Amino acid sequence: MAGTFIIAQGGGPTAVINQTVVGAVLEIRKNHPGARVLGSRHGVRGVRDGDYVDLTDMREDQLRLIGRTPSAALGSTRDKPDAAYCELVLKGLQKIGADAFIYIGGNDTSGTQQILTDAAGGKIAFVHAPKTIDNDLVENDHTPGFISAAEFVAGAFLSVDLDFRALPGIYVGIVMGRHAGFLTAASAAWRLDGDSGPHLVYVPERAFSVDRFIDDVKATMAKHKRCIVAVSEGVSTADGRSLVETIVGSDKVERDAHGNVKLSGSDLNRAFEQALAERLPGKRARVDALGYMPRGYIGAVSPVDAQEAFDAGAFAAGVAAEGGGSVALQYDGKKTVFRKVPLSSVAAKTRHMPDDYLRKDTNDLSDAGLAYLHRLVPAKYQVGKPFV
Amino acid sequence: MAGTFIIAQGGGPTAVINQTVVGAVLEIRKNHPGARVLGSRHGVRGVRDGDYVDLTDMREDQLRLIGRTPSAALGSTRDKPDAAYCELVLKGLQKIGADAFIYIGGNDTSGTQQILTDAAGGKIAFVHAPKTIDNDLVENDHTPGFISAAEFVAGAFLSVDLDFRALPGIYVGIVMGRHAGFLTAASAAWRLDGDSGPHLVYVPERAFSVDRFIDDVKATMAKHKRCIVAVSEGVSTADGRSLVETIVGSDKVERDAHGNVKLSGSDLNRAFEQALAERLPGKRARVDALGYMPRGYIGAVSPVDAQEAFDAGAFAAGVAAEGGGSVALQYDGKKTVFRKVPLSSVAAKTRHMPDDYLRKDTNDLSDAGLAYLHRLVPAKYQVGKPFV
Repeated sequence: MAGTFIIAQGGGPTAVINQTVVGAVLEIRKNHPGARVLGSRHGVRGVRDGDYVDLTDMREDQLRLIGRTPSAALGSTRDKPDAAYCELVLKGLQKIGADAFIYIGGNDTSGTQQILTDAAGGKIAFVHAPKTIDNDLVENDHTPGFISAAEFVAGAFLSVDLDFRALPGIYVGIVMGRHAGFLTAASAAWRLDGDSGPHLVYVPERAFSVDRFIDDVKATMAKHKRCIVAVSEGVSTADGRSLVETIVGSDKVERDAHGNVKLSGSDLNRAFEQALAERLPGKRARVDALGYMPRGYIGAVSPVDAQEAFDAGAFAAGVAAEGGGSVALQYDGKKTVFRKVPLSSVAAKTRHMPDDYLRKDTNDLSDAGLAYLHRLVPAKYQVGKPFV
Repeated sequence: MAGTFIIAQGGGPTAVINQTVVGAVLEIRKNHPGARVLGSRHGVRGVRDGDYVDLTDMREDQLRLIGRTPSAALGSTRDKPDAAYCELVLKGLQKIGADAFIYIGGNDTSGTQQILTDAAGGKIAFVHAPKTIDNDLVENDHTPGFISAAEFVAGAFLSVDLDFRALPGIYVGIVMGRHAGFLTAASAAWRLDGDSGPHLVYVPERAFSVDRFIDDVKATMAKHKRCIVAVSEGVSTADGRSLVETIVGSDKVERDAHGNVKLSGSDLNRAFEQALAERLPGKRARVDALGYMPRGYIGAVSPVDAQEAFDAGAFAAGVAAEGGGSVALQYDGKKTVFRKVPLSSVAAKTRHMPDDYLRKDTNDLSDAGLAYLHRLVPAKYQVGKPFV
């Protein structure tokens, strides 16, 4: 097909999501001479509103520079279209004469593409290209964006652990992740030895208890003279409520338009600070959220991640020519391979950490969990062992 | 002199403070064959307690690997010795037969060395080798550790600005710095163009007002559709109290053993969150502290900083042979040069940002301030201009 290809980016940016745009554009230009390639600004919102940037003739060196730049160069959106919104998007696509719509995002994006597919009646190819630092898409071994984010987190905890060897105390680092603990688990990827932090890793896949946490910290301090903790912002208590909601109260907690509890405020920091101050008084303690750094810090863009994100875009162009679907990064036992899977198989599902990636007895990764991380995020820096 | 050289590290670690140890050790071994070189664990505490690691015969490749590793490999301390403590340190030095003591740290460290010099009566050479991410030592153009930290901060704000171009809103990033704003100012070093953040930079050298802040944010949102703010944790209100103290109340604020207000908790985050939620309701806002990342993130070690830190250690070894003093990094108009200055000229003084580094009218860097930053932290990454 020559035709018109629309590309958009949705959800939280990543360090390499622009590579996927560039991979798709270059593949389309190669395989479909004469095709028009438009980037929609701010995801489906740009399609709805007819707000495009024309990528058809943009110079390749310019495109490749955009590819190397973190965050979503086309802009992104948090809009999760319902049926009425999807109808407006479909009208927008029809108006511009689209033959294919490649939407780069997480499981919500795949869901949007499924709704659009059903509504369009086969006239437009809808493609979902994966991205998410949360690494929580089913059908995927891992997702573009995760490796760079994981490298940042691994480097951050390696660095903080070195810092706390020099000046001992308790450190709690809060890492993005509402439902899946992969990114928090990455904190353990670059531990130097048995004394290295993080000593405790709390993920949403395991119920969190403040009592247990305090006991864990005490035991770690006794053993290592310092305690480095990695915790997902989305950890939940045994009743299934998020820790933030449990602490702040269900009636007082902030929620977004979709009813999701807002995890990003300082409530969680404060809760950890207070628990440590009250129950381990006199101990030096610091609680920090890593915030947005993992998803787009310009100094931690992984070349492997960048290449995979680019290849995912190129593969998405092929899926568009085949009528649509979701692009999945799978592992064949030796390398990452790209496969087309049905949109519905990814939509509205969340991939959690496999149970055997976590230890049964302690809040830590199992050997299987560490093996997975070491395959994706092998050690990057040589480090000298401190004298303390 | 052959003799015995003691080396120690004090205060907050940096990404390159180990280079200074290694530079000193290798220079001593070169110039003083047969000399004994001991590293004291945890700063003066190790001297007081006789806790050393012998670096005399350590393999050079091992030492250089330690040099490339962030944080203080010998351990550090927050102890600020008074006269009685200094006497114990002096006894420790005499007991081990020290001829020279090289202490790597900030202005407190220089003060300690001055007290020890006065007490020792000329029998031991006391040297202060500079390090601090705060860049607040007088006599110095800049300090080892600052450039790496500044690169992290510059990269962090460049990345966050790209993130907020994709998903607009208000971002407040809190940066370490009690009295001097250099590190927070570094947030502006890698702005791409006139639209780039940080749009507002608040440093301790200017009185902070919440009213003014809200007005600034409103004006920035109107102009740029997003607002990226860099703020020093040490910003003070017009009455001279730190913002944290003003917010929390002088009677309730936490203090350390020296009476300094604890700046590192979540109080400041919360204060900004609340001010934005109350006075700019409905706007997406995120407040994060960059925390410890700037001072030791393993992915942001500047080669220039590493070399200067190494050279500062080597120069310190020469100063030890000359009887003691403080090592200063100065700028001769073309390059960084090392000079010996009196300990007393650095001790207990704080270098603030020169007044002309800041604009008079807005909370931003002046051309002179930007020129200083661009000399020390030139652009490192090529970035493609986003389409939004």
